[in-house]
Amino acid sequence: MPQNLDDTSVDVGERISAERAAAFLADFRTMSGFGATEDGGVDRQAGTDADADQRRWLAGLLERRGFTVRYDRIGNQFGLWEATPGADFVVIGSHMDSQPTAGRFDGAYGVLAAAHAAFRLVDGWNAAGERPEHNIAVVNWFNEEGSRFVPSMMGSSVYTGVLGLEQALATTDHRDVSVQDELDRHGFRDDWDGPVAAACAEIHIEQGRLLENSDTTIGLVTATWAASKYVVTFDGEQAHSGATVMEDRKDALWAAAELVVFARRLADRFPGKLHTAIGQLDVYPNSPVVVASQVRLMLDLRSADVDELAQADALLAEEFVRIAELTGVHVDSRLSHRWGLNPYQPAGVEIARAVAAELAYPADEILTVAGHDSVNMKELVPTVMLFVPSVQGISHNVGEFTEDADMVAGLDVLTEVVRRLANAALTRPETRA
Amino acid sequence: MPQNLDDTSVDVGERISAERAAAFLADFRTMSGFGATEDGGVDRQAGTDADADQRRWLAGLLERRGFTVRYDRIGNQFGLWEATPGADFVVIGSHMDSQPTAGRFDGAYGVLAAAHAAFRLVDGWNAAGERPEHNIAVVNWFNEEGSRFVPSMMGSSVYTGVLGLEQALATTDHRDVSVQDELDRHGFRDDWDGPVAAACAEIHIEQGRLLENSDTTIGLVTATWAASKYVVTFDGEQAHSGATVMEDRKDALWAAAELVVFARRLADRFPGKLHTAIGQLDVYPNSPVVVASQVRLMLDLRSADVDELAQADALLAEEFVRIAELTGVHVDSRLSHRWGLNPYQPAGVEIARAVAAELAYPADEILTVAGHDSVNMKELVPTVMLFVPSVQGISHNVGEFTEDADMVAGLDVLTEVVRRLANAALTRPETRA
Repeated sequence: MPQNLDDTSVDVGERISAERAAAFLADFRTMSGFGATEDGGVDRQAGTDADADQRRWLAGLLERRGFTVRYDRIGNQFGLWEATPGADFVVIGSHMDSQPTAGRFDGAYGVLAAAHAAFRLVDGWNAAGERPEHNIAVVNWFNEEGSRFVPSMMGSSVYTGVLGLEQALATTDHRDVSVQDELDRHGFRDDWDGPVAAACAEIHIEQGRLLENSDTTIGLVTATWAASKYVVTFDGEQAHSGATVMEDRKDALWAAAELVVFARRLADRFPGKLHTAIGQLDVYPNSPVVVASQVRLMLDLRSADVDELAQADALLAEEFVRIAELTGVHVDSRLSHRWGLNPYQPAGVEIARAVAAELAYPADEILTVAGHDSVNMKELVPTVMLFVPSVQGISHNVGEFTEDADMVAGLDVLTEVVRRLANAALTRPETRA
Repeated sequence: MPQNLDDTSVDVGERISAERAAAFLADFRTMSGFGATEDGGVDRQAGTDADADQRRWLAGLLERRGFTVRYDRIGNQFGLWEATPGADFVVIGSHMDSQPTAGRFDGAYGVLAAAHAAFRLVDGWNAAGERPEHNIAVVNWFNEEGSRFVPSMMGSSVYTGVLGLEQALATTDHRDVSVQDELDRHGFRDDWDGPVAAACAEIHIEQGRLLENSDTTIGLVTATWAASKYVVTFDGEQAHSGATVMEDRKDALWAAAELVVFARRLADRFPGKLHTAIGQLDVYPNSPVVVASQVRLMLDLRSADVDELAQADALLAEEFVRIAELTGVHVDSRLSHRWGLNPYQPAGVEIARAVAAELAYPADEILTVAGHDSVNMKELVPTVMLFVPSVQGISHNVGEFTEDADMVAGLDVLTEVVRRLANAALTRPETRA
């Protein structure tokens, strides 16, 4: 039975009621219990029991409000509300899976905000006897984080066709458990391609401190930072780590360490303009008594300035040569992804800006450095991406925090944005660029 | 049925027959098939099926020659020949387990040489109707390598009492399989403390190039290099690897990489006198999109010069402080092992020197940089350690190689050394220091 809340006939431009805000925050607290860690964080990597339990809870939440819950071939979870049978959908949501020791907000906030935005809109339409042009799909994308199953943004990548279904299903974790096995174990895979999208909206915590530093509540995401992502493999030679004389060694870990140190110093050469990161590094055979024969790492360079990123790429290429010469180790670098400043549809940014202004929330344009499912979706359909502030910019960390008031403000803006998308603000022929 | 070879009544001082040498080399080839890799190496980590198959083959070899095969509480494999029931044993052997991608010679050569030395001696004693003072135990120590189950030299450490049995049995590999589970799966654990040792001998490949460079066939090991072994843990803070601004990061992998680079440069400051190694390094959470919150690594410093090792330790202590200040990461270093130049019993070295001279094999004193089971045994009983040359010093690598002639020379010297140990050359009261 749907709850009866007192503002079902809310007018456009009216802020969310205290009652709806409280209901959202209560659900947020319940949600944060799935995979909760002792220190206030969460651990619900894709396909784990914690991830599955949370999905079942979300399914219940959606079904009680009259939504139909379905899964597509890669385990994306959709809560469907059909205003008009056969119409395309506004797809709204994010992901509920997390890094191994993560905060409660990343992704999960966006899914729950999407659900509550949809509840409020549907209540309003039902009360008014109205029907929007598009149907609504709340989505919980599968495996956005990519910490257990690589690559990240797996579910939205398969949905948007940039990653093959078979490849995704065959992906295994470090215990050789496959995505397919885990989805089937939980019953999260169906013979269905998912709803047909007309437009998309996602809200997410910023994971940086620009909004906080400028007292801005709503980030209007205009584009992603430019990025170059490398997979670098160092091939040395296995040797006894005690007995082998130093000059005979071809130490893959030494070579890799030279690159890690260089990558950090490279960022210092472009202060505030370049982010460099090596978060994953695997050593083979990784034995205390064996000089490593192989190290493989993932290196990211990200910048808001395409020219500076190109300069950094060039310096990196020189460094690969220097390291190979210094260490005698073969360095193989493969550029796995590259993108420039990659814009969201400007008309979507304008809708979000107008909504924030009408609701009187301070808003400003911002770039996203991190990847999000909406980065995939904006290549398929017009997509609006919103941010709310992260306290001290802490993210992918149990200390991640966003104030209740900011979460509620974000929900409020998202609701109004989705109303306009559902009424085809970005999809009527005259609005298409 | 024991084979009948023509030199069963060999005199002391006589070299091994061509027939016995050929039989040894044939067994060596068979042995190298267990866990053989495509590229000529082997993979038989402790407790794996390949390790177990090889142990069963060795048991058959020993039993066919009249030896009794038994296992102790930690799965050390013994082939026992009792000249005098109740007498103590000369324990001879090494280990047959290997690193994940290893050469055919490390350890396995020493076990097979011990078996063939024992076969020749027993044949000779039987033919002559003689009985030595001590019994003979051929040993295949469990898990010397420590690549799958840490620490290394596990079997000999439990046997000699420097490692607790319960701790060793409870050790798990990265898939949470325990030593006890693996030993029980293969039936390699018995309610027995192993034979009582009177003396010990081990032969091993050098794993360095000193013997080869000086045209020396037999290395008379006088002592181990001094060593300082550290476990270093870097505690930073998990953060989003794209979005978090550089100055906010506390990147544990950056800090660890600074140490890896420093360790290599430290060795350059003591040319030829200091070996430094970091072969194992684990990153947490090891995700491409997360700044590492923790890295743990094992660092070894080894030197033939105790003073220079102390200087290196001091420089390292300064470096830990520098890295913590530079990176904002907490550096915790724990000295897990330290030893000075650790001598083998000089009387044992003299026996080996005399045998090599009598058999006319070029021999010289040498230190061992690597650890061996005999390093444990020499603290318990008088122990002789012998080396044969490694071509180009290559070790812990599929390219590891020792010439047939050198393997046979080593077997020959080992045989005569064991004969003297069995006749109590190191264990009569007047020979004890």
